[in-house]
Amino acid sequence: MNLHLESYPKGTTGAASSGRRIEHMQVGRRFGMFPQATASQDGVDSQIQVWCSNDYLGMGQNPRVAEAMKAAIDNHGVGSGGSRNIGGTNQFHVLLEAELADLHGKEAALIFASGYTANDGALTVLAGTPKDTIVFSDARNHASIIDGIRHSGAEKYIYRHNDVAHLEELLAAAPADRPKLIAMESVHSMLGDIAPVAEISELASRYGATTYIDEVHAVGMYGPQGAGIAAREGLADKFTVVMGTLGKGYGVMGGYITGPAALIDTVRTLSRSFIFTTSLPPAIAAGALESVRHLRASEAERTALSENARLLHRLLGEAGIPCLSTDSHIVSALVGDSEACRRASEMLLDRHGIYVQSIASPDVPAGEELLRITPSPVHDPKDVENLAHVLGGIWKELDIATASDRHGA
Amino acid sequence: MNLHLESYPKGTTGAASSGRRIEHMQVGRRFGMFPQATASQDGVDSQIQVWCSNDYLGMGQNPRVAEAMKAAIDNHGVGSGGSRNIGGTNQFHVLLEAELADLHGKEAALIFASGYTANDGALTVLAGTPKDTIVFSDARNHASIIDGIRHSGAEKYIYRHNDVAHLEELLAAAPADRPKLIAMESVHSMLGDIAPVAEISELASRYGATTYIDEVHAVGMYGPQGAGIAAREGLADKFTVVMGTLGKGYGVMGGYITGPAALIDTVRTLSRSFIFTTSLPPAIAAGALESVRHLRASEAERTALSENARLLHRLLGEAGIPCLSTDSHIVSALVGDSEACRRASEMLLDRHGIYVQSIASPDVPAGEELLRITPSPVHDPKDVENLAHVLGGIWKELDIATASDRHGA
Ligand SMILES: Cc1ncc(COP(=O)(O)O)c(C=O)c1O
Ligand SMILES: Cc1ncc(COP(=O)(O)O)c(C=O)c1O
Repeated sequence: MNLHLESYPKGTTGAASSGRRIEHMQVGRRFGMFPQATASQDGVDSQIQVWCSNDYLGMGQNPRVAEAMKAAIDNHGVGSGGSRNIGGTNQFHVLLEAELADLHGKEAALIFASGYTANDGALTVLAGTPKDTIVFSDARNHASIIDGIRHSGAEKYIYRHNDVAHLEELLAAAPADRPKLIAMESVHSMLGDIAPVAEISELASRYGATTYIDEVHAVGMYGPQGAGIAAREGLADKFTVVMGTLGKGYGVMGGYITGPAALIDTVRTLSRSFIFTTSLPPAIAAGALESVRHLRASEAERTALSENARLLHRLLGEAGIPCLSTDSHIVSALVGDSEACRRASEMLLDRHGIYVQSIASPDVPAGEELLRITPSPVHDPKDVENLAHVLGGIWKELDIATASDRHGA
Repeated sequence: MNLHLESYPKGTTGAASSGRRIEHMQVGRRFGMFPQATASQDGVDSQIQVWCSNDYLGMGQNPRVAEAMKAAIDNHGVGSGGSRNIGGTNQFHVLLEAELADLHGKEAALIFASGYTANDGALTVLAGTPKDTIVFSDARNHASIIDGIRHSGAEKYIYRHNDVAHLEELLAAAPADRPKLIAMESVHSMLGDIAPVAEISELASRYGATTYIDEVHAVGMYGPQGAGIAAREGLADKFTVVMGTLGKGYGVMGGYITGPAALIDTVRTLSRSFIFTTSLPPAIAAGALESVRHLRASEAERTALSENARLLHRLLGEAGIPCLSTDSHIVSALVGDSEACRRASEMLLDRHGIYVQSIASPDVPAGEELLRITPSPVHDPKDVENLAHVLGGIWKELDIATASDRHGA
């Protein structure tokens, strides 16, 4: 890969020196207009098309969700008024927890302010209970999973990403009588690949391990009624805890865990990020509830998402653009150099009004810099074609390695 | 104190065995009706008056805040669509941060999903930067402050609650050349007392310590424009970081820090609870912004709050009910026994429809069980009188120690 960045005409964007400028851009989404949006930067507005949102299904502009939120405000006000245990539990919290437990076929659910605090709060408790638990954690687990495990103080072994043989090696080496917990993601947030849930659940039952699956990038998008990857494979009951977010596929905000009632009660009683904080406003819980219900009943969003994702994967493949995986709707085009990645993102934005945030450390390790592209049901297939075409041109112009370069072909 | 609980008629409420029942009660707030609410428990509804909300100023039903939120939903949809650095920054985040920085007279501000994640995320970074920082932490600091400091891995010394002499002793004993950070609350969440901010800031400058003040229970309620206790004392500039919540006095949800631009940038760049999570929905940020602006301009809520708080303190004093402090609107009546505290809360609820959650471990240490009563501008002074009267009766009936019992009079 030969970037020739120094020879690239300076001043085209005037931004070559301010490394993080696009990251700090304001994205003004308009109801009903997404993925079109208004970008504001240094006082200048421009029209963009967003290709890196986690509003994967466009639920952020679903009229029923919006109505549910506005009705909750009109009826119940703007905040919850307290923490869950001190005056801040309302009907929407209770209904939402029942809905999520039902969605995942679990006895109980617990909602948190975010997926981050759900992972942190739940794993701090679960990895630390019982006290001598050994945790087996995927090497590419999300920061919130890592933090929860770290905060538990539990003994921890890291297995190579989605490497079942390595996981088994570690499980076999651990004392048989120690409680074990396996923590992993189904659809990986950055790589877009999907964990071998059947093999992992099989190992877990063989070694008597509790399983914690983060389905943050899967709930709403995969499986019957959007219940996620474990459910798609008919294995939801093999995972002790199914964890998700209400802020991505469901389009609102909040996080949750579902699992056996006794386990959920333990987390409810001990988790500091659950106890010591204001609960979700009624409008947020009501909106999330409506979104979950909508996506249980409707397949249209999932179908359109998977069609657009398949089309984009195919066209990028034809253009020789290497993707980290073709398993899911997370289409991560590997650039592998932070400067080239940032330039590619800038060129997309400045020349084509296409917004794809460049991803570098700390989100991915150095050398794996990528453009994380997220098609959605509200993107037009024509726009998918245009994006693939434009990206092919940028790959050539910046001399970024193609799939065949990378495979030494 | 002689509780005779075994002789108290069983079955009056049918709840003697289920220790946490009131904690799990659903509180159905109705817009414009607060502090009246509908409690739902085991399928039965009842009308209650809420006396333990953190919606201290009634902003949870402020029509302007509600309108701002609904307008943000209509215009921008229900969620942010991403994390702050990946497509999820919108105009309300930027405006809200500017407003909060201005409120506290600081260069910059950073908003988080909650006060919990603000303290956890900011202190993890700040206590750990520079690496050899020594933290001086008030013994009664909130869980989120404790967690942030703990997660930083910094060396830590605990000074007795609000004990300036003890703090000085610890500061003096520490190596002069090590960076120092003092972390404390202004209005204490449970005790309701107010920290000696002048003495602490004086010590801080003498020993060259950075100061982090949690004004979660003060912002909106105290000081010019609701800027908090440090501002009330004219000392906001003596505190390096002023931290607050948008979920209590401001009535919505969210947390923030304000401080020097370079420090805020460090937190923005390193804080995992800021980076690795979906940002606040536009409606939440827009509502909080409206609430902050409203309370900068309006004194009415603060005046009515302080009048009701003063009245309640006076009447409880006359009834011999011991309060942990009379400094603030947090009126914590000391019961000192978990069973009696729970019974007092039940009697208030079952006989009088008055909801005051009993507070026990982990919120306060054993032996300090209390009824944490929070008057507000939307409580009627007549209701304040009624509450004090009813509480006097319960204190007698349950034979809970009075102020003079406690002071050996
Ligand atoms: C795998 C994974 N888990 C958890 C989270 C946190 O979810 P939330 O955005 O709801 O805090 C994220 C992303 O933010 C994620 O990618
Ligand atoms: C002193 C203190 N700091 C921080 C918090 C957390 O704020 P939030 O409720 O916004 O998470 C609370 C209460 O929850 C608190 O009492």
